[in-house]
Amino acid sequence: MTEDTFRPVAGFQVAGVHCGLKKEGKLDFALIVSDEPCVAAGVFTTNRVKAAPVLVDMERLKQHAHHIRAIAVNTGCANACTGQQGIDNALQTARWVAEEIGCDENEVLVLSTGVIGTQLPMDKIRHGIRLAADSLGTDWEAAARAIMTTDTKPKLEDYWLDGVSTCGIAKGAGMIAPNMATMLGIVVTDALIEPETLHHALSDTVDTSFNRIVVDGDMSTNDTVLALANGTSGVNVVKRDGGFTDLHWSLSFICAGLATQIVSDAEGATKFITIRVTGAPSSYWDEPRQHYAAHAIAHAIATSPLVKTAFFGNDANWGRIIAAAGRSGVPLDPEKLTLWIAPGKGRDWETKDMPMLTLFLNGMPTNFSEEEATRIMSQPAVFVHLHCGMGTNEATVWTCDLSHDYVSINGDYRS
Amino acid sequence: MTEDTFRPVAGFQVAGVHCGLKKEGKLDFALIVSDEPCVAAGVFTTNRVKAAPVLVDMERLKQHAHHIRAIAVNTGCANACTGQQGIDNALQTARWVAEEIGCDENEVLVLSTGVIGTQLPMDKIRHGIRLAADSLGTDWEAAARAIMTTDTKPKLEDYWLDGVSTCGIAKGAGMIAPNMATMLGIVVTDALIEPETLHHALSDTVDTSFNRIVVDGDMSTNDTVLALANGTSGVNVVKRDGGFTDLHWSLSFICAGLATQIVSDAEGATKFITIRVTGAPSSYWDEPRQHYAAHAIAHAIATSPLVKTAFFGNDANWGRIIAAAGRSGVPLDPEKLTLWIAPGKGRDWETKDMPMLTLFLNGMPTNFSEEEATRIMSQPAVFVHLHCGMGTNEATVWTCDLSHDYVSINGDYRS
Repeated sequence: MTEDTFRPVAGFQVAGVHCGLKKEGKLDFALIVSDEPCVAAGVFTTNRVKAAPVLVDMERLKQHAHHIRAIAVNTGCANACTGQQGIDNALQTARWVAEEIGCDENEVLVLSTGVIGTQLPMDKIRHGIRLAADSLGTDWEAAARAIMTTDTKPKLEDYWLDGVSTCGIAKGAGMIAPNMATMLGIVVTDALIEPETLHHALSDTVDTSFNRIVVDGDMSTNDTVLALANGTSGVNVVKRDGGFTDLHWSLSFICAGLATQIVSDAEGATKFITIRVTGAPSSYWDEPRQHYAAHAIAHAIATSPLVKTAFFGNDANWGRIIAAAGRSGVPLDPEKLTLWIAPGKGRDWETKDMPMLTLFLNGMPTNFSEEEATRIMSQPAVFVHLHCGMGTNEATVWTCDLSHDYVSINGDYRS
Repeated sequence: MTEDTFRPVAGFQVAGVHCGLKKEGKLDFALIVSDEPCVAAGVFTTNRVKAAPVLVDMERLKQHAHHIRAIAVNTGCANACTGQQGIDNALQTARWVAEEIGCDENEVLVLSTGVIGTQLPMDKIRHGIRLAADSLGTDWEAAARAIMTTDTKPKLEDYWLDGVSTCGIAKGAGMIAPNMATMLGIVVTDALIEPETLHHALSDTVDTSFNRIVVDGDMSTNDTVLALANGTSGVNVVKRDGGFTDLHWSLSFICAGLATQIVSDAEGATKFITIRVTGAPSSYWDEPRQHYAAHAIAHAIATSPLVKTAFFGNDANWGRIIAAAGRSGVPLDPEKLTLWIAPGKGRDWETKDMPMLTLFLNGMPTNFSEEEATRIMSQPAVFVHLHCGMGTNEATVWTCDLSHDYVSINGDYRS
C-alpha cells in the first residue's frame, strides 16, 4: 500500500517531526492526538526488564483506559534501565504534551525506542513536542517515518469494515543498531467499544500477528502495541458468542499486515518465510514461553540459526527443519512428520493452487528434485508446511533468513 | 594437551582409518575395543527425532550395560531418518565388528555422524571395520581424528586420580556442514563400577559439561556420549553420601575439557565466552528445557544472536545481555541485576585475581570506561558474570560468538 491510498481514521491528527534525536534532519518524534477522549488498550513486552515508558503506560491504562487523548513517540533513546529519573522523564514528556494540546497529563501515553541505559535528552523532547503540536494533520506516513530506527521503510496499514475505519503504523523488531530491538505498533479506530473489549480484541490479535513474527528470537524491553478508539463511527462493537468482536477482523488485518511488513524489512533479510505447522498434539503447553504445541514447533524452526542460514543459502535442508522440530520440547512422533515447501505468497498461507514439493513423508525423505527445491528456495517468499499427524493444534509463524548483513549490522560497535 | 602427553587407559585398543566415507584419504572410521567386557553407560540426544544408532544403543544398554566390548564410529552418514533399513544397517555394522574382534553382536555399540536421510554405504563400512580391526593400537589421536566432521582439531582429554585412569575423545556440536550438528563423546576408564553408578556419574557430568555448551542452540538427532569401564584398576567406585562417586571428578574434568574444546573449535568462532549466572531464584524450573533458573538465564544469553554478534564486534553491549536475561522466562527483578565482564581464562570461572569491570549495577548502567570494556571484549576468551540478587541458584554456560564465517559455512549448499 502507498500513502496515496492510505485512508486515515477521522478525528485523529498526527505529526512526524525532527527535533535532533536523529542525525541529518531525519524525522525522529511522532505525536498522535485524538480530538475526543479515546478508549485505549495496550499490549506490552513480557520481558522482565521493562523500559520506563512501558511501566508508565501500563499504570496509566489501569486508571484511564476510557480517557486517552494522545501518544508521543521518541526515537534515539529507549529510556530503559534509567531508574527513577527515567520514570520522571517519561511523566514529564506526557505533561508537556498535555500542556500543548490541552488535556490532562493522565490522558497521554508515551513510547520510546533507541539506545538503552541513557536518559532522555529532555530539551530535544520538549522541542519535538512543540514542533509536532504545531504541525498536526493527517500525514500518517510522516508519523510512521518518525518512529523508524533501522527500518528502511515506513509501515502503515488501513482497513474499513461495516462502517468502522481502522488504521495503524509500526516499526520493526530485530532492528537493533545501535542497541536494542524494539517493536512498536499504534492502531486507531473510530469504533465505539468498551476498554475491556478493546483490550481483549487487541491481545487476541497481537497473539496471532506481532507475536508470530521472529527475526532473531530476541525480545525488547520496549515492545508495545497501543490501540485507541474514539467512537465517532457510532458503530457499537461488543463481544459475541465465542468472545470475538467485529473489530477482531480489522485489527487482525492491520496487525498481521504491519507484522509481516516488519519481517520483510528485517535487518539483512533476503527472504520472507512462512512456517505453518498443523496436526500438532492438542494438549501440549510450554508455560515459560506461553506456546501451544504448533507455535512451539514453528518457533523452534523459525529461531534455528541452522534453518535460517540454510534459507540464506537457498538450501532445502529439510534435515535442519525436522531436527529443530524434534528439539522443540513437543512430544512428536518422527514417523508421522511430513514436510512440504512452496513458493510463498507473503503473509497468506492458503495452499490451494500452490505447487507444493514434498521433502519428507511420514518420517522419511522423498526423492524430491533438488533442482525444483532450489528453485522454490530461491524465491523472495517461501512457504514451509510441517504436518505432525498427531492432533488438531496449528499455528503460523513468519520469519526471515540469517545473512551476512545481519552479522555486519549487529556486530558493528555501538558508537 | 598434545598426543605426547596423552595417557591412554590400559586394556583398550583403538584405531582410526580411512574407508572412503570422506574424500582425499582423510580418516573417517574409528573403532574402540576393550580386551575385557566393560560396564557401559550412555547419554543420548533428547531430540524426538533420533538416529538409528541412537535407538540401537539405547536398546542395547538396557540389556547389556554390564558387557560391552566395542564402539564403532562412522562419519559421512548420520543414519538418521532412514527407517527400518537404517536400523538394520546399524545392527549389521555391530554384527560385522563382533565377527572381526570375536564377541557377541550385542556387545558392540555404534555411532554415526554426517548427512541425514541417506543410508549407510555398507560396503565402505565393512571395509572400514576390517581395516580398523587390523590396525588396533593406542593411537587415540587417530581415533579422535577419524570422528571429526567440520572440526579443525582432534579433541582428547585424560585424567588420573587415586589409581583410576580415564581418557576420552569427542567431536564438535554446531558443526553442521554438510547437514547436521552432531556432538559425539567417548570416555573410557579402568574403574570398577556398577552400570547404574556409571550411568549416574555420566549423566551428572554431561549435565554440567556437554549440556552447558551452546554454539547455535540446535540439537542433533545423533548427539551421544558413551562411557566404558573395564574394571582393570581394581579400584571399586561406589556411591557416597550425596550420591557422588570418586569417578565424578575424573569424568567432570574430561567432559568439561572436551566440551570447552568443542566450543573453542566451533564453526566460525573467534571468541570463547563463559556465561556465569549467580543469585538466581531457587524455585524456578523450565520443564520443556529441563533448566533451573540460572541455567535458563545463561542459556537465553548464550543463544541470543544479538549478544553473539555483539561479541563478534567486540562490543560490551550490556543492554543485549540484560534484555536476553529479561526474556528468559525467569521472574527476575531488574533492579537487583548486576553485570561484570573480565578477560576469560578458558573453562575456568574462578574470579579471584580477575580484573572485573562492572557494566551494570543494581539495575542501572555504570560509568564504565568504553576503552577498558573494548579491551576486555577483544580478548580471545571473555568471562561474563550476571548476579541476580534473588536466590542461591547458579550455573555456567560456555559459548562462542556469531561471525560472518558461521553464516558462510552454514549457508553453503549441501552438495
